[in-house]
Amino acid sequence: MTGELMAAELAEQPEVLERIRASARGELAAICATVARAAPRFVLLAARGTSDHAALYAKYLIETRLGIPAGLVSTSTYTTYRASVRLSDVLWVAISQSGSSPDLVESTAAARAGGALTLAVTNAVDSSLADQAELVLDMQAGRERAVAATKSYTASLFVLWLLVSGWGGLGTEPADRLPALAADALEISDLAPLVARYRFAARMVTTSRGYAYATAREAALKFMETCYVQAQAFSGPDLVHGPIAMVDSQQPVLAIVPEGVGGSALRPVLERLVDLGADVCAVAPRPVPGAAAHIPVPAGVPETLAPILQVLPLQRLAHGMSLSRGHDPDRPRGLSKVTRTR
Amino acid sequence: MTGELMAAELAEQPEVLERIRASARGELAAICATVARAAPRFVLLAARGTSDHAALYAKYLIETRLGIPAGLVSTSTYTTYRASVRLSDVLWVAISQSGSSPDLVESTAAARAGGALTLAVTNAVDSSLADQAELVLDMQAGRERAVAATKSYTASLFVLWLLVSGWGGLGTEPADRLPALAADALEISDLAPLVARYRFAARMVTTSRGYAYATAREAALKFMETCYVQAQAFSGPDLVHGPIAMVDSQQPVLAIVPEGVGGSALRPVLERLVDLGADVCAVAPRPVPGAAAHIPVPAGVPETLAPILQVLPLQRLAHGMSLSRGHDPDRPRGLSKVTRTR
Repeated sequence: MTGELMAAELAEQPEVLERIRASARGELAAICATVARAAPRFVLLAARGTSDHAALYAKYLIETRLGIPAGLVSTSTYTTYRASVRLSDVLWVAISQSGSSPDLVESTAAARAGGALTLAVTNAVDSSLADQAELVLDMQAGRERAVAATKSYTASLFVLWLLVSGWGGLGTEPADRLPALAADALEISDLAPLVARYRFAARMVTTSRGYAYATAREAALKFMETCYVQAQAFSGPDLVHGPIAMVDSQQPVLAIVPEGVGGSALRPVLERLVDLGADVCAVAPRPVPGAAAHIPVPAGVPETLAPILQVLPLQRLAHGMSLSRGHDPDRPRGLSKVTRTR
Repeated sequence: MTGELMAAELAEQPEVLERIRASARGELAAICATVARAAPRFVLLAARGTSDHAALYAKYLIETRLGIPAGLVSTSTYTTYRASVRLSDVLWVAISQSGSSPDLVESTAAARAGGALTLAVTNAVDSSLADQAELVLDMQAGRERAVAATKSYTASLFVLWLLVSGWGGLGTEPADRLPALAADALEISDLAPLVARYRFAARMVTTSRGYAYATAREAALKFMETCYVQAQAFSGPDLVHGPIAMVDSQQPVLAIVPEGVGGSALRPVLERLVDLGADVCAVAPRPVPGAAAHIPVPAGVPETLAPILQVLPLQRLAHGMSLSRGHDPDRPRGLSKVTRTR
């Protein structure tokens, strides 16, 4: 049936998060200890597509919670230009659901040869990527069959959060309620009016700030993959530095507004958008003044964990929009589950 | 007159590049020597908008030509979350035409406090950013008045190329012909047919790989700012990892295809796009098989310098498209020359 794989995997997420939470004291704790002992001074994160948004989230976590500078990798440096980069004192984190894209496998091999400690975060612990890396962190999402990733995304965010928490000795108690909150976030809203509202949108903009910027990126990718909408994500300040000129009333804006300082920092951007007459939908615990629509998410969640919940109604929205347009979100045109790039 | 500032600044670029080339043995050489002596092990690049594309270009240069890992900064780590990041052995490069965006000034101050060697690359050597940084590299573009940056972009690419060349002791001879080639690149093509072709395009995709990916990003920003087209840049592999599902015949694709390995690595993506029936325009020294249109750029240019030339006809194209739509590229709606974000 059309879209049933994505719907089932989407609904499975509270259970996947609970499985990860319950296992956090085992293998994951051992990996945290190994990384902490290695005491890397710099972190590089390599990924593509959905996993690249998990990498972006992890970059904020590592810099903000651990005080260690981090960067996102352009794999072509290693694969296309075959650069020899000096990577001692570097932790290299490669994130990939399938663990099979040649560019990630090859760049991880090059990073290891260059002196980095290499860690694969993958849903396929028997993959080429897992073989190549010294440490392997299992996403534990279970097999994912829909082309558009859902449960592997939230699973990778959560294992990365647990990695950073364990590595920094920061405690994992704030995540105890996460599986239950994920179930709430999936239930909380009737999205049919928004599915109808966006029925004929050809373009969308998503925006956020800080940790939640990863949510804006991932939501945009879901809309592109499953609805064939040109959806483009900007951090709030990047939007203001030029692209905002193109925003008009014909281009819906989806703003992820977390509680905490990230959300506060986004307010001036939201005010500009509302002043411009943009059609803003706020993904936030409470409605945002001036916004035309609102998608509620659970309140009282630490900003570092909120991205795991914010994306859930947006996955549902993409799924609903895809079906309303007559597409099959399980099998987007021109895509296959495993993408191999060099 | 409408668009005359941008046209004048666009035409000035060969002269600006010659000014920078002629000055490379002076202050710039001293900065290169200071950076080389400091022997940084990591580089972080902070920028917004057009300057962020210069940062992306510099990231490839630093990793590929010097073998030093580099990353792009999310300034909110420093400004919004006030993270204390340990930055000894880090070179922090802040790039900004105006040198006045508070997020860049504040994050650069935080980076210096965190132990980084700080370098400002700016067109305003008396700016707050220049005050904050230990080293200041002048873009030497002369005052830029059009809101859409042109000459400050190519100037920043060139000073960054010279910085990396001087720092690595790599020689600057390949750039001797650059100003003359820039004059050629500005003259080489009649863009009127393409301006007409894209007259009613509401969406565009730009793509490239490696060094030239910065060109794809900068071209997309120019189209957004001056033509209000939703233009979205992807590295070739990122396009294939999902977004390609949204590409159809109604969405022009502009592909920057350099000579060298970056261009070769892009070929499989171009073939996919042509197979999908996408309307591809290739920005390349020679026409690309299957592409519907071609914008020629000078041949025989090293891949590391090519981005300085590739962008020139694309700036002209954005300018022409903006006028054809009845907009003023000098004064895009809702933007001002200096953007202040936190």
